[in-house]
Amino acid sequence: MRLDHIGIAVHSIEKALKTYQSGLGLSLSDIVTIEHQKVRVAVMPLGESSIELLEPTDPISPIRKFLDKRGEGIHHLCFKVSNLAEKLKELKGTGLQILDSIPCQGLENRKIAFLHPKSAHGVLIELVEEEL
Amino acid sequence: MRLDHIGIAVHSIEKALKTYQSGLGLSLSDIVTIEHQKVRVAVMPLGESSIELLEPTDPISPIRKFLDKRGEGIHHLCFKVSNLAEKLKELKGTGLQILDSIPCQGLENRKIAFLHPKSAHGVLIELVEEEL
Repeated sequence: MRLDHIGIAVHSIEKALKTYQSGLGLSLSDIVTIEHQKVRVAVMPLGESSIELLEPTDPISPIRKFLDKRGEGIHHLCFKVSNLAEKLKELKGTGLQILDSIPCQGLENRKIAFLHPKSAHGVLIELVEEEL
Repeated sequence: MRLDHIGIAVHSIEKALKTYQSGLGLSLSDIVTIEHQKVRVAVMPLGESSIELLEPTDPISPIRKFLDKRGEGIHHLCFKVSNLAEKLKELKGTGLQILDSIPCQGLENRKIAFLHPKSAHGVLIELVEEEL
């Protein structure tokens, strides 16, 4: 198991970049919009993983709802798996609740699925199929 | 900049380990108590970084306060720096607010300092001096 990225919900990518670039010294590799998830994503490589700053692009964005409820902060952890469909099968019966029983599409059209934070000690977990 | 670990606040390390070991397939390398921080820590390696499950050992533990206020979930991100005292000097004027102007001791007596989440878009950031 490897960490793919840490998702951080922010009101403004531009404002948050000042903190993460000038303050912490991270670099920005890309900013992309995932239309169907209503989110704009700034990717900052961090060793073998990355930090993704997540900004809502629409009032119905899940990130907008998170910001309204909890304010800015860490939104989710994403782990790489070699075969997502198989991993989701394995998870049945472990107590971890799968939010997406059929993998959906994330950044760069990678297959992703989320696990419910209530079943994972308050942590929203994303699983992404690793590109070989 | 590299990620050292992700700290996750939990009520019970034993219960949370079931999720992270049986469910996600992570392995446990160690469980230690940091007396002065009133916290018990389960370390699970995750590639070049790790996940630390944090359980309060005392009602005055900062982790106890976090759990009472927010419930279980991600508590902080810790980044490795080569020279902590120098990094703290560099941070002055960047807007990032240092909670520990003099580095204190973390796990394995490593030098650590925390930055205020209000100055870092809702993320509690720990910096740790990397052992060379």
